[in-house]
Amino acid sequence: MKQGCTIALDAMGGDHGPEVVVPSAVRYLAANPYVDIILVGDEPRIDAILGKASRERLRIRHTTQEVAMDELPSKALRGKKDSSMRVAIDLVKEGEAGACVSAGNTGALMATARFVLKTLPYVDRPAICTAVPSMHGHTHMLDLGANVDCSAEHLFQFAVMGSELVSAVEGIERPRVGLLNIGQEEIKGNEQVKQAHELLSKSNLNYVGYVEGDGIFVEDIDVVATDGFVGNVALKCSEGVAKFIRHTLTGQFKRTWYTRLSALAALPILKSFRRTVDPRRYNGASLLGLRGIVVKSHGGADEVAFENAIYIAEKEIHANIPQRIGEQVGQHLGREQYRETA
Amino acid sequence: MKQGCTIALDAMGGDHGPEVVVPSAVRYLAANPYVDIILVGDEPRIDAILGKASRERLRIRHTTQEVAMDELPSKALRGKKDSSMRVAIDLVKEGEAGACVSAGNTGALMATARFVLKTLPYVDRPAICTAVPSMHGHTHMLDLGANVDCSAEHLFQFAVMGSELVSAVEGIERPRVGLLNIGQEEIKGNEQVKQAHELLSKSNLNYVGYVEGDGIFVEDIDVVATDGFVGNVALKCSEGVAKFIRHTLTGQFKRTWYTRLSALAALPILKSFRRTVDPRRYNGASLLGLRGIVVKSHGGADEVAFENAIYIAEKEIHANIPQRIGEQVGQHLGREQYRETA
Repeated sequence: MKQGCTIALDAMGGDHGPEVVVPSAVRYLAANPYVDIILVGDEPRIDAILGKASRERLRIRHTTQEVAMDELPSKALRGKKDSSMRVAIDLVKEGEAGACVSAGNTGALMATARFVLKTLPYVDRPAICTAVPSMHGHTHMLDLGANVDCSAEHLFQFAVMGSELVSAVEGIERPRVGLLNIGQEEIKGNEQVKQAHELLSKSNLNYVGYVEGDGIFVEDIDVVATDGFVGNVALKCSEGVAKFIRHTLTGQFKRTWYTRLSALAALPILKSFRRTVDPRRYNGASLLGLRGIVVKSHGGADEVAFENAIYIAEKEIHANIPQRIGEQVGQHLGREQYRETA
Repeated sequence: MKQGCTIALDAMGGDHGPEVVVPSAVRYLAANPYVDIILVGDEPRIDAILGKASRERLRIRHTTQEVAMDELPSKALRGKKDSSMRVAIDLVKEGEAGACVSAGNTGALMATARFVLKTLPYVDRPAICTAVPSMHGHTHMLDLGANVDCSAEHLFQFAVMGSELVSAVEGIERPRVGLLNIGQEEIKGNEQVKQAHELLSKSNLNYVGYVEGDGIFVEDIDVVATDGFVGNVALKCSEGVAKFIRHTLTGQFKRTWYTRLSALAALPILKSFRRTVDPRRYNGASLLGLRGIVVKSHGGADEVAFENAIYIAEKEIHANIPQRIGEQVGQHLGREQYRETA
């Protein structure tokens, strides 16, 4: 039998706050009988949105503050100790919740999570990891923006954490791990990447070598490690290209009465296509390397997307991600070989 | 009346060598009566492929060596003085050709072009620039891989060169210039990007500020400057996502007999869509910052794609790109303000 678990939701985070988080919670609870949810935020507002919805396995934890989407992480950390974001993370720290999910300000979420939960031994920096759709299913990519300047050791740690996440959550025994690089010979990559390549080649990860930008989406690879600047640009580029292509395709179908008719005929295909590449199905980025589970939802997430982020949190609870990463990272990073090289 | 010009083609470069370059040249000459072409490479091979095609405005310059696609740039530069790539660049240096086009090894092409042609005054490093399709037409992006580690001044120079290229070739008086960055607050970018932002804000370029990865494809922007690592990943990512989406869409249409029928109905739309996002229409990257015009074609380019690279070279000859960039870069980079900051 599936074990029960409790997930804390930052009800005030994101562009839509409780208007999206509360209905998502209600839907999620209805579909998942072994989950309890704590809605953290302004009780009267949450209460009003809940209305007559079932409150079974649902609690509200009232808070008086909110972290703004553009607030400086340092300010949020110092001045907002009763924010919905902070209290949701505190609940994980105190063991009241197995994980928390927030659609709030990424910088503040990372800074607060790091301060409250602390990083695992051997992990220098936590990283943000998400899955992106690819021709072979999907690829997990990290870091996505938490660390703009990374050393070879950081990149190596990201690779270990990503591999462990995929192994635990997807049940792949030895995930194929790649290192993001550029294609040209000789000028192949910067110093950090070349050194990380050395570390990875000597590790017992299933390291397949360098991957170029297109490889994330077309190659059969499970984990791609890169620094937060490049990872963020790669992720956002993929969103931009997908939007551009959707826009162009829609424009073509609307051009004339004939193309409008063909669009009608092609509707089921286009719908099924949209479902396959629906970014909402990929909503939910994991903050890895912490002593607790924190999942970041896209700020603009709708209910379907936010539910997916809750689902990721639940999967990570069942897979016991922080403990597994702690053990594996310890094994990899505690090894003589790594320490000597690093 | 349009003035005549001469373009040298590295006939041996690329995955397909003369099999693609020679027919492209023949087609290009037929369609463009004011252009002369010099095919540089193995004369007997070129001659055999030319067969009975018209040789009007076409010359062959025989060479005895070839630069391999995976050859080290330093080796190509030292040891291959009679390679088709080197001689095509020499022809530009000697004024026999107004530009050269090569589908060969990017690293070798950049190293050889830099050695033979030299960089313009005030330009520390040449950069590779190409247009990518966007919701508003297209966006020029640079650098795409020539410079993996860039200072703020390098990024600034890329922005000036890109702006001047777009202004001259597209006739846009004050191109909108952006600097590629990541979205999160506080952790917004690395030091180089922040400093380049300062330099650009004080310049008289039409600088619109930071652009995120998706902005390249959805925002109304003419030039995006970034370092060669990030630019290369961004470009390849866009190619990968486009390939993935094409693959998924095609898969959906082939699913059942009904979807196959709808695909038939939607065929004209899909064709017109493919034309709009056809990467071949964007083939041809400019090596900017040199005292001569060098255009790099994709190694795997077919005839249509290679013709587009020749077209870009012709446009740059008519726009007198190196001289214009030289003047503008001098104006921008010779300014007191820039020198003081830098």
